[in-house]
Amino acid sequence: MLEKTTRMNFLYDFYHSLLTDKQRSYMSLYYLDDFSLGEIAEEYEVSRQAVYDNIKRTEAMLEEYESKLLLFKKFQESSRLLKQLKSFVSDEGLSIIESLEKLD
Amino acid sequence: MLEKTTRMNFLYDFYHSLLTDKQRSYMSLYYLDDFSLGEIAEEYEVSRQAVYDNIKRTEAMLEEYESKLLLFKKFQESSRLLKQLKSFVSDEGLSIIESLEKLD
Repeated sequence: MLEKTTRMNFLYDFYHSLLTDKQRSYMSLYYLDDFSLGEIAEEYEVSRQAVYDNIKRTEAMLEEYESKLLLFKKFQESSRLLKQLKSFVSDEGLSIIESLEKLD
Repeated sequence: MLEKTTRMNFLYDFYHSLLTDKQRSYMSLYYLDDFSLGEIAEEYEVSRQAVYDNIKRTEAMLEEYESKLLLFKKFQESSRLLKQLKSFVSDEGLSIIESLEKLD
């Protein structure tokens, strides 16, 4: 479950701009703020099932975007390479690497 | 027009996986293979207007994806930084930079 939460947090980070406002609200309460389904349901005055269905659909959408755009996969690969690269650069190079890390 | 073509080629490169098969076919004939609207219309046995409308809508979708995900903008920035970085690395570092360039 922790692994899934971490993955969903990353996918949300990369693709949240493609979601609707409601999808963003539910996902961010559930995954970032650790609200329960019941608490979200109460907050939005909808059924727990409605929140659950919405979150499941959104998770599937995020996985679908990832399967098409691979932003998370490329991010992991680029983080690994930038970390390696740090052994082979001067101080000036290091500050450029930090700028590259901020881009992701 | 050349500038627009270059931009559309890049946006297509980044976001084509989010388009439908028909959108991909029209865009790739028009922008990559330099077919005219009339030639595409003939190929698919539809009106020239239908091809034009489809391409205009697809261009707008690509711009919309770019406004949300900024992949082209980040690519330009990362290309610039990686090029700078080449002055500050050893040979081993250079081969890592080449791997990073291939990721984009």
